[in-house]
Amino acid sequence: MIDLAIIGGGPAGLTAGLYATRGGLKEVVMFEKGLPGGQITGSSEIENYPGIAHEVTGMELMEPWPEQCMRFGMKHSLDEVTKISKRDDGIFEVSVMGKDIVEAKSVIVCTGSTPRRAGIKGEDQLFGKGVSTCATCDGFFYKNKEVAVLGGGDTALEEALYLTNICSKVYLIHRRDTFRASPITVERIMKNDKIELVLNSSVKEILGDKMGVTGVTIVDSDKNERELAVPGIFVFVGMNVNNGVLKNEDGSFICATDESGNVIVDLKMKTSLKGLFAAGDLRIDAAKQVVCAAGDGAVAGMQALEYVND
Amino acid sequence: MIDLAIIGGGPAGLTAGLYATRGGLKEVVMFEKGLPGGQITGSSEIENYPGIAHEVTGMELMEPWPEQCMRFGMKHSLDEVTKISKRDDGIFEVSVMGKDIVEAKSVIVCTGSTPRRAGIKGEDQLFGKGVSTCATCDGFFYKNKEVAVLGGGDTALEEALYLTNICSKVYLIHRRDTFRASPITVERIMKNDKIELVLNSSVKEILGDKMGVTGVTIVDSDKNERELAVPGIFVFVGMNVNNGVLKNEDGSFICATDESGNVIVDLKMKTSLKGLFAAGDLRIDAAKQVVCAAGDGAVAGMQALEYVND
Repeated sequence: MIDLAIIGGGPAGLTAGLYATRGGLKEVVMFEKGLPGGQITGSSEIENYPGIAHEVTGMELMEPWPEQCMRFGMKHSLDEVTKISKRDDGIFEVSVMGKDIVEAKSVIVCTGSTPRRAGIKGEDQLFGKGVSTCATCDGFFYKNKEVAVLGGGDTALEEALYLTNICSKVYLIHRRDTFRASPITVERIMKNDKIELVLNSSVKEILGDKMGVTGVTIVDSDKNERELAVPGIFVFVGMNVNNGVLKNEDGSFICATDESGNVIVDLKMKTSLKGLFAAGDLRIDAAKQVVCAAGDGAVAGMQALEYVND
Repeated sequence: MIDLAIIGGGPAGLTAGLYATRGGLKEVVMFEKGLPGGQITGSSEIENYPGIAHEVTGMELMEPWPEQCMRFGMKHSLDEVTKISKRDDGIFEVSVMGKDIVEAKSVIVCTGSTPRRAGIKGEDQLFGKGVSTCATCDGFFYKNKEVAVLGGGDTALEEALYLTNICSKVYLIHRRDTFRASPITVERIMKNDKIELVLNSSVKEILGDKMGVTGVTIVDSDKNERELAVPGIFVFVGMNVNNGVLKNEDGSFICATDESGNVIVDLKMKTSLKGLFAAGDLRIDAAKQVVCAAGDGAVAGMQALEYVND
């Protein structure tokens, strides 16, 4: 029986382990089948993690974290967790692929969420080099430049509006001529001079060279093609919340979630299930920033410690 | 008229400014009458800010923050804010000592909270060198050592319990023979073998040398003195929430607070007053850790930007 199982090894999971073990919790295991560090390790430029003032890659940013966060005794299990459940006696069962079930007194889930890719030619190769899924993270790198945004939902439109604060022009590319977003957001889009709507259109290819994106090829419903010479494209075609480990066999969740599957937490990162905490990008209202995920992790680690002591 | 007034220049305020200006907000002013950096700059050892793996002083930790957070256009006003109010037209008025009122579209308050000192001989001189007000921050530095805790309220008892996970023994010094804390916490204190109660007693002096605390002199109600040779003492005699700027003339607050004066926020750091956000140690359920305050600040900065754009 371990004291705390941490599912996921990104900024939230690592910081949760740091705080729980430094606070004296003895048996703390972080389950992360790959290298710790999380999604951010795929980013090429970060300048907004407070305290790291020079621009770094995601790999560089996260490089010191595992050693720092594990030196107080957290163990790293290189295994994949498939399922978490809580028994009537209050103990959690952590199902580990190909291994025995691990019993734990408490669990912090920090499995994040993953932006969907659109499946466009060039998208994967140029991801992090002009293809982005986060305007807050990368918008500033296109200050006073033109960028493209792909998508027609709330997130796409909100991120397009965000980018108009920074960029000289935003091409909003959407395959239909109406938007699924809320009317008030659509209205703001329509009123914004910096946004050029590219409707009934899709992106056929993202163009680029070794330096990154150089443009996108657009095709409309009449098969007319044209090229937009933008150095950046933001793709917002949905988000996969990595909540699979929290699913019961009937598809319901072991704790409360919102309609998109984000885990509902309070300011203490407590879920609706006692002893289960959530931190980072899979919780509701997550800002999806490293410093926010780390802050969540610290809170969850401290709270799990208190829960186990009780 | 400015877009955003940030009150306070600690980790929360600095990060709020970083995110708001990097997101494109133009007129952002941080009001901080002293050097930015916050309370943490008084700490001598920090090893739990993720990404800064080596042990640093608070001054060293915060050294790169002001330049990083201000390079996207945040201005620093070296002034003291005395009062914030919101007019019927939705504009905030920021009263600045000795100057004209500043009008702002939105406000983030991050003025923190300050642990009270007990007023003991030696306390100020040895603060940060064995005298601490935060078990989560400093407890680990006394791993397997004996420490003293001063206080009889919920925080004192909870922090004493926290320290028993790390330290070999915790002397809990309280001037009465009963505790103001909740019965369940008192029960856990009574049951804990590592806690030695030192009741009806106060600390006459904190002893130390250049290296830090070496012990404390205790005096009981019969004036008997004895010395405890501890390298650390944790003082929990209350917290001043720095919420003065949010007070109306009648003593009520411009936004909802809890009974201790902590500002009530949701996961987006929104207070009950639209356009007013709170971040860091003065909000409810604050973990009072740098990384958590910074995470709060990032969220508040992004939310203020969205509010102003709307």
